[in-house]
Formats: sequence, C-alpha cells, structure tokens
Amino acid sequence: MKEGQRRGDFTLPGEAGYEALTLKLAETWGADVIRDSDGTKLSPEIAEAGYRIYSTLCVIREHNAFALAHPETQQQTFLMSEAVLAEGDTVRIEPLKGYFTEQFQLNDTPEALVYWEVWDRTAGVRVSRDDWDWQDGAVTVIRCIPWHRYTVSFLCWRIWEEINMYNHTTNHWTSEHLRQLDPRHPLAWNYLTEWLDKWCADNPQTDVVRLTSLFYNFVWIFGEDLRRRNRFTDWASYDFTVSPAALRAFEAEYDYSLTAEDFLQKGFLQATHRPPTQAKRDYMDFIQRFVARKAREMVDIIHRYGKKAYVFYDDSWVGMEPWGKYFSSVGFDGLIKCVFSGFECRLCAGADVPVHEIRFHPYLFPVGLGGLPTFMEGGHPEKDAMDYWVHVRRALVRQPVDRIGLGGYLHLTEGFPAFVDTVTEMGDQFRRLKALHAEGSPAKMKLRVAVLHAWGRLRSWTLSGHFHETDGNVLIHLNEALSGLPVEVSFLSFEDVLSGGLNGVDVLINAGRAGDAWSGGDAWRNPALLAEVTRFVQEGGALLGVNEPTAAPDGDTCLRLAQLFGLDVDDGRYACHGAWSFETGKAPVPLWPEALPVKPGARLISGDSQVWAAKDGVPQATCRKCGKGKAVWLSGFAWSPEASGMLLRLLSWMAGQTGENVARTDSLSSEAAWFPASKTLVVLNNGDDPLETEVTWPGGKAVLKLAGREMRFLEG
Amino acid sequence: MKEGQRRGDFTLPGEAGYEALTLKLAETWGADVIRDSDGTKLSPEIAEAGYRIYSTLCVIREHNAFALAHPETQQQTFLMSEAVLAEGDTVRIEPLKGYFTEQFQLNDTPEALVYWEVWDRTAGVRVSRDDWDWQDGAVTVIRCIPWHRYTVSFLCWRIWEEINMYNHTTNHWTSEHLRQLDPRHPLAWNYLTEWLDKWCADNPQTDVVRLTSLFYNFVWIFGEDLRRRNRFTDWASYDFTVSPAALRAFEAEYDYSLTAEDFLQKGFLQATHRPPTQAKRDYMDFIQRFVARKAREMVDIIHRYGKKAYVFYDDSWVGMEPWGKYFSSVGFDGLIKCVFSGFECRLCAGADVPVHEIRFHPYLFPVGLGGLPTFMEGGHPEKDAMDYWVHVRRALVRQPVDRIGLGGYLHLTEGFPAFVDTVTEMGDQFRRLKALHAEGSPAKMKLRVAVLHAWGRLRSWTLSGHFHETDGNVLIHLNEALSGLPVEVSFLSFEDVLSGGLNGVDVLINAGRAGDAWSGGDAWRNPALLAEVTRFVQEGGALLGVNEPTAAPDGDTCLRLAQLFGLDVDDGRYACHGAWSFETGKAPVPLWPEALPVKPGARLISGDSQVWAAKDGVPQATCRKCGKGKAVWLSGFAWSPEASGMLLRLLSWMAGQTGENVARTDSLSSEAAWFPASKTLVVLNNGDDPLETEVTWPGGKAVLKLAGREMRFLEG
Repeated sequence: MKEGQRRGDFTLPGEAGYEALTLKLAETWGADVIRDSDGTKLSPEIAEAGYRIYSTLCVIREHNAFALAHPETQQQTFLMSEAVLAEGDTVRIEPLKGYFTEQFQLNDTPEALVYWEVWDRTAGVRVSRDDWDWQDGAVTVIRCIPWHRYTVSFLCWRIWEEINMYNHTTNHWTSEHLRQLDPRHPLAWNYLTEWLDKWCADNPQTDVVRLTSLFYNFVWIFGEDLRRRNRFTDWASYDFTVSPAALRAFEAEYDYSLTAEDFLQKGFLQATHRPPTQAKRDYMDFIQRFVARKAREMVDIIHRYGKKAYVFYDDSWVGMEPWGKYFSSVGFDGLIKCVFSGFECRLCAGADVPVHEIRFHPYLFPVGLGGLPTFMEGGHPEKDAMDYWVHVRRALVRQPVDRIGLGGYLHLTEGFPAFVDTVTEMGDQFRRLKALHAEGSPAKMKLRVAVLHAWGRLRSWTLSGHFHETDGNVLIHLNEALSGLPVEVSFLSFEDVLSGGLNGVDVLINAGRAGDAWSGGDAWRNPALLAEVTRFVQEGGALLGVNEPTAAPDGDTCLRLAQLFGLDVDDGRYACHGAWSFETGKAPVPLWPEALPVKPGARLISGDSQVWAAKDGVPQATCRKCGKGKAVWLSGFAWSPEASGMLLRLLSWMAGQTGENVARTDSLSSEAAWFPASKTLVVLNNGDDPLETEVTWPGGKAVLKLAGREMRFLEG
Repeated sequence: MKEGQRRGDFTLPGEAGYEALTLKLAETWGADVIRDSDGTKLSPEIAEAGYRIYSTLCVIREHNAFALAHPETQQQTFLMSEAVLAEGDTVRIEPLKGYFTEQFQLNDTPEALVYWEVWDRTAGVRVSRDDWDWQDGAVTVIRCIPWHRYTVSFLCWRIWEEINMYNHTTNHWTSEHLRQLDPRHPLAWNYLTEWLDKWCADNPQTDVVRLTSLFYNFVWIFGEDLRRRNRFTDWASYDFTVSPAALRAFEAEYDYSLTAEDFLQKGFLQATHRPPTQAKRDYMDFIQRFVARKAREMVDIIHRYGKKAYVFYDDSWVGMEPWGKYFSSVGFDGLIKCVFSGFECRLCAGADVPVHEIRFHPYLFPVGLGGLPTFMEGGHPEKDAMDYWVHVRRALVRQPVDRIGLGGYLHLTEGFPAFVDTVTEMGDQFRRLKALHAEGSPAKMKLRVAVLHAWGRLRSWTLSGHFHETDGNVLIHLNEALSGLPVEVSFLSFEDVLSGGLNGVDVLINAGRAGDAWSGGDAWRNPALLAEVTRFVQEGGALLGVNEPTAAPDGDTCLRLAQLFGLDVDDGRYACHGAWSFETGKAPVPLWPEALPVKPGARLISGDSQVWAAKDGVPQATCRKCGKGKAVWLSGFAWSPEASGMLLRLLSWMAGQTGENVARTDSLSSEAAWFPASKTLVVLNNGDDPLETEVTWPGGKAVLKLAGREMRFLEG
C-alpha cells in the first residue's frame, strides 16, 4: 500500500468474490482498512493483502442453534394487547392479536406470568388478579363493567432479531430468521463469552473487532397487518432490555419493583421524545451499568488477543450511549457512527474514546433507508453521498474525527463511477480537514450555547435516531445547525440547571413541543427551575425558546416562562382574552422567514416585546429585554443553510458578540472557518447555487465566488 | 293604520325630529309598533299616531346622580394585577396598572379588602396575609422568593356602564359616562323599584316596557393601553355580578365560601368556552335565582300599570338566559333577540315566553359591530341586511317567531333607499312564513339530534355571543347549520347523559377543541360517561365527533372515545407510534371538503375505520361501525350553504333515514321545506349564485331554477 497525502484513515468494505474490485477501490480511495459487512465476507486474498482488517460481529445474533436449544435465553419485551370492549360482564382478550407473530411469542412461564396485568382502561384501574385467567390462548376477564375497555399487559419473547427482521422484510431476504440472546441469562452469557473467545482465537487476521453494536436493539415493534407493520419505532428506548430476571435484579437493588405499566404507559410506551418518569430513569441507569459491565468483559476478551475493540453505535446500542455516564468505563478503542448529518458527526467526534470513525451514507445496498433506489436503476448514489457530505463536512470543519469509511456490498458500486469519484473527493477533503485540525484548532467564538432538555448530556446532539426519523421535532433542526457553528455547545438536563449548570452559559436554548422531552413537560412545574432560569436571564443571560419552550400545564401562562418572552402560546385557556397588538419591527440580525412556521396560538402578552417577524397577525420571532438579559422566541426552526446562518447571527447578537476572532461571511448560506495555526481559511457554500460572498477573518477580507456546494481552502 | 297582509308584527324605531320619516317608514314597512332606542326619543306626534309604543329602559343605567351620591351601590368585579417579578425579597404591585381606569376603581373598603389575595404565581401558592400590605396605592409583598412572580387579586368598582363605554369609545360619544347600580344593594334596589314605578306612572302612552336587558352586563374588561384595549370579552360570563354582599350571601346558602381565585383562575378568568368548575356552576345558579327573583319584582310593577314587559336578550343579560331554569318564572311577556344568524333565531323562537321578536341587523348606526361603515359613506346596509337574512330565514322556515323589528337612528336610512326596499322584502317574506306556520308546521324528519357539551340546555344554540365573535369554535358552525335543518335539535349536558338523556336520540354530536366546554374537557375522565355514550353507540346510536371530541388528559387515547371512532388526534403522546395506513373510500353522502380543515395529528388507530376524505395523508372524515351503531369523525366544520347541505345528508345517513316525509333538494347549497297543511313548498337558494335543483316532496317533484339567494314559495 502506498503512503501519501491522499492515503489512510479510510475503511473499505471488502467483498469475497470481488477481490480485484476490492483492491482497486482500496487503492482509489486510499483505504488502510478493509472490513466485512452484515451479509458479506472477506476472502483470504483480501485479508492477506496488507490492509488492517475489521471484522463485524453482532454479538447477540447468529446463535440460532443455541437459541433453539435454550429458548429461555432469548430476549423479551412487554407488550399491551389491543383494548377490548366489554359488552357484558366478561371479556376475552387474545394478547398478541395484531402483533407480528414472526417477531413475538408469548411468555407465559410462571416467572413471566407474575408480571402480566389486566387493566380497565376506561376507568384507568388495574383489574384484580382474582378477576382474570389465562387459558387456551386468551385472557378471560370476569366481573367487567359493561362498555369499559380492557387490556392485557404481558411479557413475550422476541424470536426474530430486529435488524435481521428489517432486512428480511425490506430487502426480501429469505434466509433463516436470526434469533438473539439476552446477555443477562447466565447460560447465554457463558455461551457468548466462550464463543467470543473462540472467535478471537480462530481469527488471527482480524485487527479490530467491530461490535455492531452490543446487546439490546432499539425498539421496533411490528404489526401483523401490513397496513400497520410499523407499530412503534424508537431508536433509543429500553423496552427490549426487559426480562423477569432484569426486573428481579432491579427490585433487589432499588427497593421498589417495576410493573408492566411502568413500561407500557397505557400503551403509549416510553418514547424517548417524551419526558421520562423517575422509574424509567432508574431503570435506564440500571441497564446502562449492566451493559457497560458486560461490554467491559467482552472488550477484555478481545484485548487479550491483541485486537482492538471498536463499537458501532447503531442497531443494538441501547444502554451504551457514548455520552452516557458509563461509556468510557467499557474501554472501547474506537467508536464508529454512521452519519447522514452534522449532528451525528459531533455525537461521534465528542465521545470519550480513542478513535472516532464515521461511516458514510449511502450504505452500499440496492435501496436506501427510506426504501428509495440507491445502487440500482433509478438511484443516484453520488448525489445522495454529496447531499449528506454537505451536512457532515460542516461539522468536521468544527471538530475532527479520525477516520471515515463505507459499508455494504462493494460490487454494487460497479456501474456508478460518479459515486466512486464523489467518495474520492470526500476522502480528499476529509484528510485535508483532518490535517488542518492536527496543526491547530479553528478559531471559535467564546460563546457557550447550552441546549436544555429532559435528557441533558445523555442525548447530546441526537434526539434518538437519524435526522429524517426525528425531523418532526424542532430541536434536531437546531442541533443540525449548531453542529457546524463556531460556538461551544453543551446539553444540559433540568437537574444540571438546578446544580449550577447555567454558570458560564451565554445562550440557553429550550426548543420543543408542549409536553415532550425536548421542551421538558412537567419539569417546568418546578418553581426552583423557573426561578433559576429567570435569574439567569435577568442577570444577563440570553434565553432562546423555540415553538413551545417551557410549556407545562396548570400555570398562569401556557409557557411557564411566557412572561420572560412577553409571548405565550395559547392552548385554549386564553379564550376571550385579547392579545397585545403590535407592529413588526426590524430584527437586529437578518432573519430567514422560511425557517419560521406560523405557530397557531402565539400571542403577545406584554407591551414591551418586540416582534421581528409575523405572518397573518401571528408573531414568528420576538424579543424581550429582561433585566440585563433577553429572551428570544422563534415559532419554529426548519433547517436550511440559510437558517443555520440566521442562527449563528442570532446567537452572536444574543450573546453580545461580534465574532471578530473567527471567520465570517456576509451571506446566510455560506460559512467560513479560520485555522490560525496553519493560517488557512475554509469557506463553504452550503447552498446548491453559486454565490458571491464577502469573507472576513482575523487580518483579512475577500470577496469570493463559490460554486454551488463548494468547499474552498485558502491559505493566508 | 291600514290593515292588510303586509301589515303588522313589525317594530319600527321612531325618532323625534324625524316625525314624517317615522310615519312614512311605518307605513312602508307595515309597522304596528314604534319604539325608542338607546340614544333616541319619541315625540308626542309619534307616540300619539296610533301605533303601539315600546319604551326602552336600561334598568341599572342612567342614574348617575344616585350613583354619585351612593357610590357603594355601584357594580363591581374581581381583577388580577399583572404578575410582578421579585428581584429580591420584596415586591411592590400596583393592582390596577394596565387596566382602563375610566372603567375601574379599586375597592379597598374593609368588606372588600378581606377578599383581596396575593399569589406567588411561580409556585402556585397563596401568600399569607401576614406577608403583604396595602398602602399608598400599592401592595407590598415581603418574604418573597427571588425570581418568583407575584400577583394581587382585588375587587374594584366598575364606574362606567360597559355598553355606554363601548358606544363612547367606538362612536366617539362625548356625553357623561353613565354608571350602573347593583340591584343587590338594598339602597339601590329600593331606588330602582321606586324609579320604575314612577316611570310607569309617568309614561301612560307606553304599551310595552322593553327592558334592555336586566342587571348585569356580559364581561368587557378594557385595558389602559390602546394596544390592548380589549383585555377580555365574554358575552356570557358572570364576573360582573360579584360583590362582597353576593359572596356573603353565597356562603350563607352554600356552606362554603368563594374566593377571588374562583373567579380569576390564575388570571384566565372563567370564559364560557372553558368547562366550568363546580364552584362556578353553584355561583351561576345562585345568581340566576337572584336575577329571576328581582326581575319578577320589576315585571310585577310593570304589569300593575297594565303594560307588557318584554326583555331584550343582549347586553345586561347575565343570569337571565332564556333556556335557563328560572327564565319562565320571571313572567316576561316577550323576548327580543337581535339576530345575525339562524341559531340566534332558534334561541329566541324556542324560549318559553308568549311573544318572540327578532331585531334585525344592521342596527341603524353609522358603523357596524366590526367597526365597518354601515349607514355612512362606504356602507351597504342593504347588502348587510340580506347577508344576515339569508341565515335567519332558514331558521324561520323551521320555527317561527312572532315579530320582527329594527333599532337605532331612523334618520340614517335616508339616502339608503335600497335598504328600505330590502327591509320591505324581508318583512313580506317573514309574514308569509309566519302565516304558513300558523296554518300548520312544516314536515320534519323524525331525527333527533342532540348536541352534547358542558353547558347543555343553558347554552342551547348559542355558545355565548354572536357568530362572528365565536366563530373560532367549530360548534357554532354546526349550530348555525342545524338551525335550518328539518330535524329536532336539543342540547344535552354531561349530567343529562348520565340521567338517561340519550333516550330517543338518533345522532349525538360532540364538537370542540380538547379542553374546551364544547368538547367537554375533564368531564370525559368520568368512566360512567364514557360507558354510557359507548353503550348508546354500540346499541345502535350514532355519534358525530368533530375536531377533538371527547378529548381529556391521562387516558390511553387522546380522544377518550377514540376507539369508537377508530381515530385519534395525537397530542404528542403517539411519538414513535405508527398509524394505520388507509385508502380513501367513497362516502355514502356527498361531502364538501372545503368544510373540513386539515387537523394535524389525526390518525387512524383501527384497521376497520373507513376514511371518506383525507388531505396530505391526514384523515378529514372517517366512519367506523360500532356494534349496531356508528361513529363518524370530521376534522372540523366550516359553515357554508354547502356544508349545511352536507350535514343534513350526513345526519340522515347516520340515523338511517331517507327523509321521504320532508322536502329535499339535490344540490347542497339549496334547501326546501314542505308545509303539508297549506300544501306549500318553500325552496331556498342559500348560495350567492343561481342554481338549478331538483326538489322532491311528499307527492311531488320538480326541477327549479333559482336566482342567487332566492326564496321561492310554491303552492302545491
């Protein structure tokens, strides 16, 4: 392998049967590592070609023989039956009706059955155990109240590993359904550690074990009916970690017991977008410690064989969040994150682990995640790759990662030469950015932004899944914008705020919908929180609220800090009340109105608020001076290059900073970074169209013409 | 006065100084009654011209000398100060700051001060009386928690009668501000009854005392700042009935005491659009009995002089609702209602009182209620009159009233001959309809529609004000449509439902926004209510839910009867949950999609719901069979002639009726009525454009061409 500027830090997916292609593309893209992927193998010819080798291991999967021999070691979950209407005084409920029976199988073992519950959902009360019986495939409830609805909460085995199930159902795979083992079961754990040990011994050519990921998948609950195949999808929920053994262990440690209802929450489950109960918080911490402890044992085995242990943070990631309290205790050597977006890049880059690697999209698969063609007729993978790269490179300009790579079936790139060229270009740009960072960090404003939500640091940058899976939440749009701005960003929980977390913060962001985890919901019922944020603002801090910030029921305003904003968002309680009329004034920074949706119910509640933008008489952007500080409200925030530019200018103005130590452009859709050590300027046109922009940096100024999506390096 | 078909049942506003005009228009319009108006007088020449005479009396107003001599007899209200932020441990609050000081004056007499309260609104707790003091025009609160917000709740005098205040501020009147007396004060009551007695003695020419209205005005709270002149406007709230004396009397009767907070509700007050607390219900009943008792005394005085007592149900109507429990006990001889809409006509027509009179709009004033020109340059009063008439006549076709009339300054009609002609035509049509009804009622379907909301019968037909004041609430659109349909309509409260109110109901309607009085809010937490409505539907009834019907927090669905609809409206709790996908099928009746807004969050939760209409993947109209019954959901309902037509067809289909005993048209924007006794068909084109429609009635069928807005009478 040749060495050179355009070499290294690149992980190529090799493919047995396509040895020549593998080696040729390794050369073209300057790979230093070759990996296998889910569904591909490496041949000796590839493995022995002088590249470092990553081997993908899905720890809990591909042990079907063991799983079938010991079905009690499989993973489980709670489910709630559909609600059945009592037309008389008895009702018969088939618990699994409507669920995908290829995924779920009832667990009515004695140790599971004690966790089953029957609820009268109309009255909201649990039915006495004396009043129901499980027999012949159904629960029969007696002494029902006619015209009430009843549900059964139950445990069941998950008999199809969900990533495999997804690939089968999406890509029409026909191979055997893979099962998954629960590492909490001693039999399974012994089996898995012995298996891993043997695997390491049998695979001396492997340099890096690429764990994909650990033990518990995010939650994917399928329905039987194709009209509701997706019943529930949460990329960060803990439902799939549960078992009677876990519940018993929890009870032993916490002195209280969890019930099915703690998980099922009337059937709404515990979506990450919703504020967690204390029981959920306890349970998550309990699982995180378990996952970290078990993962450490696996890493130790891998290390004993002189191999590195990298973890892929997608799929079975639950409990191993890279920003969680226990992640660094595992001792991983590297973290690999697939990225569509800038925020995912920052999620990876900021984790406490030696090596940070990002895997680009598109994955080398015929179809993409949304089901659209990628590497097949009608697909434009080079366009997809560049679409994602425009997001990712912004983040890389601010904070580097160590490596990049691809995954999937390499042979699919044949017939897509433009894709090959695009990846070559991306590799070049990545390496050049990495080299700049190595010489010295880019200039950053002394502007500390803190994003405040229920999860705080645990859910830094991400909400739960990828951008396109969570883009109904305004915060992911903000996080994506922030990922490429020359400011410091941290993520605070409400508890953090109550223990001094606002010290040093310049701009505090709270952005979400009333009642969700991002706005915060009931957390805002706490007067101490309200007082502390008020103090922060009145004493000179800046608060940026988006959509329904600080909203909680039962206050004297709908947004609990409405009086700071001088604006509230009516949930119906303002019936018959007149709002303050207003004239729309000029904002101190250029706004991008396309980013600001009309928020029905938004209304001025103070005469001293300034309205910067409004549509049809409804404010879209407002500002109020509060003591020495200020509170800005935006109706929403839809990500775009221009919206990002607006956000930077808004944050700077709110913090009273001019940004003279950093590079600035005068067009909203472009950005610039100044690397003082290497005296290099990086200018990005994030928009599709060519533009002319004036760039100012410490000691210089220039007018540049940039092509659409161009990234230009200027050595000063 | 000549007698004839085009004579009588018409009340004309006369005006001194315009005697010839008065008598000429009386002749033109066939008046049998001449009245004075607020601001006009009748001269002897008019009063003695042989017409019956109505004299307008605003009982509680126009006693300024007495009010100034006895200011303690004036009316009062509770108000809440603005919330003031404590920056340290004390805070100073000026209670009236921000309120219109021409309307309000603090009441800090000892008997009032005991009702004052200070609240820490951040913590939601009342401040101990030891920790605040009222002195030098401000309340000083000590031992504050820094960065909490504090409010003062206080009583104040209302020193400007609100209708007079409105006329002054709207029409730039400059006369003395009129005050108002509280009939609860013994001094005031003695004065008022003596005054009324004397007035009756002094005005022998008056045939009918037209009370406009009784004692307590609807609530109009003005702000000092013109940018928030309208702080609160509720046409049916009871805030203006309060006084220390009323509170003491309430406590004596109810064994519990009301506080300022019962009225102020954190500053949101008690808007009629919001579900009432039990304390509010008790208080309203208490006031209604007081108003009825006192009104009866006044009516008795009037009757002693051989005069009739009619009451105008607008302005100071609070506590005398015509559909309330005590209205008929007053003994009024007539009810006069100003009408813009059909529902107001039904409100009047259905009240238990001998004479029902409607007063047309526009009022003879230079400007209309919205501030637009009417009888002045730029005004088109004839167009306005016809716009309202198109709504009103639909209701008159279904249920007659006894009389019509106008009000205001008659001389303003000079220069508007088209208005004079329009009123002539309206009078002709009214009299013809009245004569038809007199011969025998129009055919009606045996289809009983019940509208279910928190208020039930008390707020039959109206929500609180006129259509244009409440048109943000979907129910008024439905009520307006129902007012002209050949079906029976009643209004049920949730208590009615629990005591057998659904017996005989064919279609039950629940229509409103989550948490409002029309949807019902917390009432839907009651399992007995849920079970009873479920029973009704499952046993064959039909439920029509509109917007967010049956919504209440804390259930296993957002709409508590979502499972009947097979549809729910997500309030955020469905995060990560997949909905049922659907194909849009054909509805069994013609829909009018313009009436159905997109309702964000609407989602199918059942595989057996039919979707009749959808936009951007969001259902707009759905139907689910439930046992022997059915549940239909509409995203909303925006009134139009066509939407009314859709509603009739939908209700008929839901009730399983074909309507063969009534007259039907085949176009949505037209309607027909069949008067069997007189064998007369009335066909209305409710739209602006000409149309051709097939009309079917018992024993006949015809295709008719109608001009825009035409009403045609066909004798069969």
